[in-house]
Amino acid sequence: MLTTTTRIRVAWSHCDPAQIIFNPHYYIWMDASTHALLKQAGLNLAEAIKDPLFRGFPLVTSSAQFHSPAVLDDEILLTSKVKKFGNTSFHVAHEFTRNNTLLCTGKEVRVWGGTDPESESKLIAIPVPGWVRENLSRSDVVDVSV
Amino acid sequence: MLTTTTRIRVAWSHCDPAQIIFNPHYYIWMDASTHALLKQAGLNLAEAIKDPLFRGFPLVTSSAQFHSPAVLDDEILLTSKVKKFGNTSFHVAHEFTRNNTLLCTGKEVRVWGGTDPESESKLIAIPVPGWVRENLSRSDVVDVSV
Amino acid sequence: MLTTTTRIRVAWSHCDPAQIIFNPHYYIWMDASTHALLKQAGLNLAEAIKDPLFRGFPLVTSSAQFHSPAVLDDEILLTSKVKKFGNTSFHVAHEFTRNNTLLCTGKEVRVWGGTDPESESKLIAIPVPGWVRENLSRSDVVDVSV
Amino acid sequence: MLTTTTRIRVAWSHCDPAQIIFNPHYYIWMDASTHALLKQAGLNLAEAIKDPLFRGFPLVTSSAQFHSPAVLDDEILLTSKVKKFGNTSFHVAHEFTRNNTLLCTGKEVRVWGGTDPESESKLIAIPVPGWVRENLSRSDVVDVSV
Repeated sequence: MLTTTTRIRVAWSHCDPAQIIFNPHYYIWMDASTHALLKQAGLNLAEAIKDPLFRGFPLVTSSAQFHSPAVLDDEILLTSKVKKFGNTSFHVAHEFTRNNTLLCTGKEVRVWGGTDPESESKLIAIPVPGWVRENLSRSDVVDVSV
Repeated sequence: MLTTTTRIRVAWSHCDPAQIIFNPHYYIWMDASTHALLKQAGLNLAEAIKDPLFRGFPLVTSSAQFHSPAVLDDEILLTSKVKKFGNTSFHVAHEFTRNNTLLCTGKEVRVWGGTDPESESKLIAIPVPGWVRENLSRSDVVDVSV
Repeated sequence: MLTTTTRIRVAWSHCDPAQIIFNPHYYIWMDASTHALLKQAGLNLAEAIKDPLFRGFPLVTSSAQFHSPAVLDDEILLTSKVKKFGNTSFHVAHEFTRNNTLLCTGKEVRVWGGTDPESESKLIAIPVPGWVRENLSRSDVVDVSV
Repeated sequence: MLTTTTRIRVAWSHCDPAQIIFNPHYYIWMDASTHALLKQAGLNLAEAIKDPLFRGFPLVTSSAQFHSPAVLDDEILLTSKVKKFGNTSFHVAHEFTRNNTLLCTGKEVRVWGGTDPESESKLIAIPVPGWVRENLSRSDVVDVSV
């Protein structure tokens, strides 16, 4: 599967009074990583959302297991790829490591979002486009660190 | 079980370019709500963390299901309570509603954190103190909105 | 002038490894407070931004002086009001206190945002509507805490 | 002066319902950049804060002028350097650009923080160490992007 890697340097702003990463930052990084994965799959989100029939890829469920803490200045590697496709959904698996230490594993389930043809304010799940599936399924590892 | 409720007004800062709450904010609110729950159970965290043998109540796993989106200026109610105790762990169930609409359900599994007697830098899970369990188990609903 | 007050309880998520509020949170609170001030002045932003000719009230400059730190669980009072109107701009003064201790003073300069009639993608500063000025100028203090 | 540059890719999480960067993120990036500047000057903060007599480099004032907005996926360059030393203080100038467009200029005034010898809970401003001034004053440009 198409796999992205992102290097993250733990900043002061990421840490809490216990001197470790404040947990919601992991979810923010997972979100950014899924966006990067779709960009690598050819989606230009900034353009695509101008189409009123496309409503992004909203999150349905997310979860994370925290295995080991990380502290200021640690360099972390986030690795992300799609694990499974449903009809309208896709599951992204995320893994955070520091050298060989597993810090956190996470999962996001997202759907492809469209506008209900019967009600323009209503968001519905629509099939993940074929070209998106194909591109997310190709064998490649891309470093998407800025 | 001891139950806290928190009213949340959706602010500009909570919303993303899709005009809905950016999902990691739910995890930030769950974290704050668990802190409020423990405060209502009698824990003064600001004092307690001065004891080097106490290391807070670190998160082991968290998850959320997103049922319905919320937008700028919505008033949300977050309801939180412990669902289950392990020996060293406790599960907190969170529910976000807007009027009668369920927006999000979440779960946190946390442990009681202590310092390994053999290594002062190492955090270990220790039994949840009896008085904490008792106080979290009493029947009461407390509004902890600021 | 119309004045809003907001009570803020310092949460774990607001604090950094030095155990005090991480400074950008003050700017997030100022932003929310200016939004609340305009809401009290009669602006329904969620509705108003549906008009493509209205582009909000973008920030031009902001600043803050940090007088005294605040820690976990402190209760802070944020007081905000307009200090001055330009033609297209308005200055909001913010003050954070804890009991009688001044923690932080801040200032935002914002303009009323409109769409350039010559180029729909371009945002320009337009005169602050008369009714907004009038409502922001009335003598009243409103607690906007959730 | 020692100058750091940081490349920033604008993420979904940085943007607000107006589709532009939510302003407090600029302050978060300035904070990170000042940390990186001091790291390049030889300060290992994670180690240094273990000394109870050192209390970091707390912010006294900050400000920003927002010249032009930035949107999802823009690549921004943040350039930072010390502009001026006081006895116990230093001023950091920050500039955000996208290609040749100036987006934002910012300033932070910070002091070197120490513990009052008369009261261990009290933070006081102490002289910026000579080696820090010297290292911050050397002519060098370092890219500190992760």
